[in-house]
Amino acid sequence: MAQKITKQSEDFSKWYIDTVLNSDMADYAPVKGCMVIKPYGYAIWENMQQALDRMFKESGHVNAYFPLFIPESFLHKEAEHVEGFAPECAVVTHGGGKKLEEPLIVRPTSETVIWAMYAKWIDSHRDLPILINQWANVVRWEMRTRLFLRTTEFLWQEGHTAHATEPEAAQEVQTILDIYAKFAEEYAAVPVLKGRKTEKEKFAGAVYTLCVEALMKDNRALQWGTSHHLGQNFAKAFDVTFQTETGERDYVWATSWGVSTRMVGGLVMVHGDDKGLRLPPKLAPHQVVIVPIYYSDEEKQLVLRKTDELVAQLRPEIRVKVDDRDNYKPGWKFNEWEMKGVPLRIEIGPRDVAENQVMVARRDKGPKEKQKIAFDGLKAAVQTLLDEIQQSLFDEALKFREENSYKVNTYDEFKDALENQLGFLYAHWCGNEACEQAIQEETKATIRCIPLNQEQEDGTCVYCGKPSHGRVPFAKAY
Amino acid sequence: MAQKITKQSEDFSKWYIDTVLNSDMADYAPVKGCMVIKPYGYAIWENMQQALDRMFKESGHVNAYFPLFIPESFLHKEAEHVEGFAPECAVVTHGGGKKLEEPLIVRPTSETVIWAMYAKWIDSHRDLPILINQWANVVRWEMRTRLFLRTTEFLWQEGHTAHATEPEAAQEVQTILDIYAKFAEEYAAVPVLKGRKTEKEKFAGAVYTLCVEALMKDNRALQWGTSHHLGQNFAKAFDVTFQTETGERDYVWATSWGVSTRMVGGLVMVHGDDKGLRLPPKLAPHQVVIVPIYYSDEEKQLVLRKTDELVAQLRPEIRVKVDDRDNYKPGWKFNEWEMKGVPLRIEIGPRDVAENQVMVARRDKGPKEKQKIAFDGLKAAVQTLLDEIQQSLFDEALKFREENSYKVNTYDEFKDALENQLGFLYAHWCGNEACEQAIQEETKATIRCIPLNQEQEDGTCVYCGKPSHGRVPFAKAY
Repeated sequence: MAQKITKQSEDFSKWYIDTVLNSDMADYAPVKGCMVIKPYGYAIWENMQQALDRMFKESGHVNAYFPLFIPESFLHKEAEHVEGFAPECAVVTHGGGKKLEEPLIVRPTSETVIWAMYAKWIDSHRDLPILINQWANVVRWEMRTRLFLRTTEFLWQEGHTAHATEPEAAQEVQTILDIYAKFAEEYAAVPVLKGRKTEKEKFAGAVYTLCVEALMKDNRALQWGTSHHLGQNFAKAFDVTFQTETGERDYVWATSWGVSTRMVGGLVMVHGDDKGLRLPPKLAPHQVVIVPIYYSDEEKQLVLRKTDELVAQLRPEIRVKVDDRDNYKPGWKFNEWEMKGVPLRIEIGPRDVAENQVMVARRDKGPKEKQKIAFDGLKAAVQTLLDEIQQSLFDEALKFREENSYKVNTYDEFKDALENQLGFLYAHWCGNEACEQAIQEETKATIRCIPLNQEQEDGTCVYCGKPSHGRVPFAKAY
Repeated sequence: MAQKITKQSEDFSKWYIDTVLNSDMADYAPVKGCMVIKPYGYAIWENMQQALDRMFKESGHVNAYFPLFIPESFLHKEAEHVEGFAPECAVVTHGGGKKLEEPLIVRPTSETVIWAMYAKWIDSHRDLPILINQWANVVRWEMRTRLFLRTTEFLWQEGHTAHATEPEAAQEVQTILDIYAKFAEEYAAVPVLKGRKTEKEKFAGAVYTLCVEALMKDNRALQWGTSHHLGQNFAKAFDVTFQTETGERDYVWATSWGVSTRMVGGLVMVHGDDKGLRLPPKLAPHQVVIVPIYYSDEEKQLVLRKTDELVAQLRPEIRVKVDDRDNYKPGWKFNEWEMKGVPLRIEIGPRDVAENQVMVARRDKGPKEKQKIAFDGLKAAVQTLLDEIQQSLFDEALKFREENSYKVNTYDEFKDALENQLGFLYAHWCGNEACEQAIQEETKATIRCIPLNQEQEDGTCVYCGKPSHGRVPFAKAY
């Protein structure tokens, strides 16, 4: 814990891993590519889950649970889907000491098993819509993994909805995208671009994929969440039809959508600094840490009594941690809680008790900006500070993204910008997959999305020179 | 939904499956032995999770997440553990299109992978205790499965704690048992016996296992939850030592404990009747269902406006569902919500609106006991009724258990009682595993536990006639 972490400017990748390990968020599991989410990291995920789950339920969704194992043959029913996922699958071949007749896939995503069930459940328009979400673990065999960002097993939520009409499905895809964006910006304090994936980048089996994309502090992009319009592809693959109000039979329309524990990694890379994590108050496991300071038993008694009063004042609305460990010095504790990104630190010593006040330090500001706050009305003051920190982290991240978004007009400018590690590069693109592919192969940059609010602007494709009517953001991505 | 279910007295097993399927709690998955937990069943599980999670956290536990996959070799490190679990394992042999060097087990329980991590994390007495819980899916290959009660994959929580001393570990085992019992009785309204498993029935790898046992309506017992003292077995298997306060190195003491989705099945079998589920208010997805009754558009407008007022009065403290579907008649809706076990039904028609009252029917009472309740002060009245229902379900279950618990003194009495499908049979047992084994083989009854509050009483073993100093409850069990 007391170890130094690598500076962001020296080696961002190493900074990231140092931060995740030293803040006690996660650890490497014995199985290659898997991770252990330690209590501190898991508490962040629980806060994320809670906020999202509430938004899903408020918009009419319910939770359910579908099985981990999928018969291998199911995956093959949707042609694009199997092509996308089969290479990443973990396969169970033995169970109960015997070789299985048909191998089982450990779910990489659950469309196939869920649509096999929807085939049983849906018969009439009265059975629609189905608006189901599940919180689950999924497995995708990955060669190059990184804690939270890309792991063989990860936790996520996956929504799977069924609708009677195409417009309802399209509306659902948009509703969820808006929830993901709202969660990113209002809870995680992470500004996101809303857009549509190119044909090349869309989900395997989707008609189209909407996404929210964020910019990390090393100017690489991170796909934060995706919402897929599946058309009637899965309904056709699993023969799911329903009787319409007019008595005909039609295939059901589908969507699926998900966000995962990779958001935790995104949170780290958007807000963290050379001291470690900086957590937005709405997702921080501890919003406030109180460090009592004393040098004698008498002082200790005095200070701890006041601390108890303080805690009683702040809880339960504010998540407070008291660090009263005797075997660590205050300075050491300050460093630890800065590493762990607690938004607000309250220091209280004998003199503070005498003056009926505390010293407060914001994690998002420098140590010189400590301020005194009176004990009376502390709760309201703390709440205001937490709101300010939440906003200031968002503003800072937004400013960073704006300052690192560039319009580039030629392929040379494009390559120069990438060499200088710039962020989102807005360039004209003809819409042709061949250019997209060539640019990716030559520069490793991908089109992150076609922005939903894309401005109409005539120009020429940065690669082939053919006409284009709007810019798209390119970036290297996680 | 409108289907009739089998009567409990005709075929309890069939009644159980009919009820689970018809109340829309669960369905069979495409993979043999697996289940789909449908939204209504999952909402009950979520309520269970919430209550337990709060109790775990209040007693100092934190959540984390450990990987699904365990290297096969890990399972072999603890001799009894591998013997118990290896036959039930699902094995992943291929990942990412290649055969794995070492097969991976899909966790049947996580002691081995967790203690491999604790070996990394624990070095000093200052690192102890570790009080971690995880909510996860586990897989045990089962030949004979039954929805919720025994499925190849199930959801559960598993706590894994590490302590510096034996008494601390013993205390933890007891603390958790008390939480499980409190949850069973106060939330699920299920009375439980607290006891210790015999050597034969204890967890594979434990020093001893405490358990809570419940009696189902068919007089078979259900193991509701278990809490294991693991001694230093896993610490030795994974070489987990720590520096004590006096500077020596000692092996760490361990516990593990869990409850699963099988509790949902237990809930059904303790409270259900020939009309379907009866859910205790504290765990019911909908505590109250309101069925508006009208026969004209004018009446509809009037009644629905009043319904809205009602809902506004009851929420958010009370979980209310309004069934305003136009395509079903009130009587049909009554049956459906009775099948689904909603504790309280409120009917409101035009005359009720005029008289400023509603009709209220309790699911736990007969239909003749409907009562009128004035609109003013409805919320307090509903809250009181819900409390009464919660208590009455518990009282009824306790009465059933008492009436079906018998002292038997000879083996003939014992066998007669089993033939008459009686419940807990309290018999003397010499403490010898041979007798326990013989009784099980001859009668299928097992010793459910050695009660923690066992009365001292001299007698002779029901099987071999040797001396015994207390009775133990035998029963056929799920």
